Amino acid sequence: MSNRIAVIGAGSWGTALAVSLSGNGHIVKIWDVNAQHLKDLEEKKENVRYLPEVKLPEGVQISYTTEDALNGADVVLFSAPAQHFRSALENALPFLKPEMVIVNVAKGIEQKTLMRLSEIAGEKLPNARYVVLSGPSHAEEVGRGMPTTLVAASEELEVAEYIQDIFMTDSLRVYTNSDVIGVELGGALKNIIALGAGISDGMGYGDNAKAALMTRGITEIARLGVKLGANLGTFSGLTGIGDLIVTCTSMHSRNRRCGIMIGEGMVPEEATQKVGMVVEGIYTTEAAYQLAQKEGIEMPITEQIYNVINGGADAREAVKNLMTRQKKHETEEHF
Amino acid sequence: MSNRIAVIGAGSWGTALAVSLSGNGHIVKIWDVNAQHLKDLEEKKENVRYLPEVKLPEGVQISYTTEDALNGADVVLFSAPAQHFRSALENALPFLKPEMVIVNVAKGIEQKTLMRLSEIAGEKLPNARYVVLSGPSHAEEVGRGMPTTLVAASEELEVAEYIQDIFMTDSLRVYTNSDVIGVELGGALKNIIALGAGISDGMGYGDNAKAALMTRGITEIARLGVKLGANLGTFSGLTGIGDLIVTCTSMHSRNRRCGIMIGEGMVPEEATQKVGMVVEGIYTTEAAYQLAQKEGIEMPITEQIYNVINGGADAREAVKNLMTRQKKHETEEHF
Repeated sequence: MSNRIAVIGAGSWGTALAVSLSGNGHIVKIWDVNAQHLKDLEEKKENVRYLPEVKLPEGVQISYTTEDALNGADVVLFSAPAQHFRSALENALPFLKPEMVIVNVAKGIEQKTLMRLSEIAGEKLPNARYVVLSGPSHAEEVGRGMPTTLVAASEELEVAEYIQDIFMTDSLRVYTNSDVIGVELGGALKNIIALGAGISDGMGYGDNAKAALMTRGITEIARLGVKLGANLGTFSGLTGIGDLIVTCTSMHSRNRRCGIMIGEGMVPEEATQKVGMVVEGIYTTEAAYQLAQKEGIEMPITEQIYNVINGGADAREAVKNLMTRQKKHETEEHF
Repeated sequence: MSNRIAVIGAGSWGTALAVSLSGNGHIVKIWDVNAQHLKDLEEKKENVRYLPEVKLPEGVQISYTTEDALNGADVVLFSAPAQHFRSALENALPFLKPEMVIVNVAKGIEQKTLMRLSEIAGEKLPNARYVVLSGPSHAEEVGRGMPTTLVAASEELEVAEYIQDIFMTDSLRVYTNSDVIGVELGGALKNIIALGAGISDGMGYGDNAKAALMTRGITEIARLGVKLGANLGTFSGLTGIGDLIVTCTSMHSRNRRCGIMIGEGMVPEEATQKVGMVVEGIYTTEAAYQLAQKEGIEMPITEQIYNVINGGADAREAVKNLMTRQKKHETEEHF
């Protein structure tokens, strides 16, 4: 079954998915806000800037207008950075048809409004068939056809199953889930812990500290998530702890690389500049910190990372604060 | 509050905990079945064989008999390998007093009987005050005072809290838990997934595959655990996913190192020999496979690893079997 897919945003992840979808027999068109980037893509048949050394198959067509990309599409896949999802959606609105399924792969919380991306979509397109596609998936590996799992989450199971069918290959296994809120929050908030894991690595701490940070980190993410309407179990799955693991242990992660430089003593602004691409975790840490305060949720790790990034707090002091908190029973807190 | 602790087994973990406990002001005696090893410890003031480059403090006394080690002890810490816990306990039985608290740090399931180690203790010492101490903790890091978290699990909360007080320092944070079964099973069964993670790495697969293996791995471990009486939430905690993370991502792990060699094409027997120390996951995979069959629990990852280790199955074929299983809804399966 061949479908027509419009990919909005030719970053590393949008490109990797375009490659995979084309290989799976679908008709793929890709558009980006940067026309020069599209020209380079078309000429070099490769996304040299964001996904080097992965050949763009003949089947992936370059669209120079949103209108062309969306014309006749069955599925519109948004792969813009989270802070640009609103404008990408607004830009596409005139060409979207009710029968098109919207898939969003961006991970983040809108900084100005503290809105989840599905909330933005719900505001602009109240009756859209909307799917969040998330999971432990470095674009560099998916572009090369290395084994990867994803979750397609939608309030309507049949829509999630439709996307599952479209994306699933021998090397890309897709599960469905109906917990849109949990899947979105897991993907967004893990970047906070990735920053923290990088800081821990940068300070020279070991695997024990990082595993503790990740485990207690997903615990506090789940605590906030449940307050915001997510299912607890989602945070134990591929889009929760799974994505957290891949982000915290890999050098592919921009958030972790940024954290490492901070842990080594660089000021956060300089570290962010050095990474050169969007470090979503910087925004997400602030958003989560504000959400936790608003909802009255205890998030000790997020709070310490927020203090290091925004308040100039000393990272070693932050670790000490976490290690010497009041003694706890483990299950009072985790899920 | 100074306590007298007898450590039974001078491997890397027993030694690291002896060092930490002594630094925390306790009186520590250490015994091992290998008298020559004890002599080396006493002469070199260092466990050259299992925990090199960590100085043994003056406060750690060497005991050449179990009787001497246990004489006057408040706490008896068993750090023998899991398959030797029964004989270590039997050997200590004549000198154990009812008021002594037993702490076990071994991780595994007894191969011959498929018993958890607390079941063995319960058989030999029906009324003992028994604590399992587990969590993401490479001995190499604890011996150096690097930040680490542990969980002290006991059916009696006050006994767990007593052990929490004894072990907790500025760099070793201890949580309590009452789910002895869950804490034991998490620590034991994670070694199966560590073998699998190593195999995946050895075959050249990436971070996405490994994160998927770990996430779906803890899902099936939890499924078996709940059937055996554990609490679901424990597997999301430090002794479940936390310990799994540290084991699967670190070169300190013997199980992962063994898996890497198998993934690179070495036969399992040869890989085990090359590691040189106990590869607990080999035994645990067989035990879990048998338990899953006995209890009627679906454990697809364990089954594939069992086939690779015991049945000579091809590892690439095993991965393909996992990736192309019937399509699933994520939350049908996870917790």
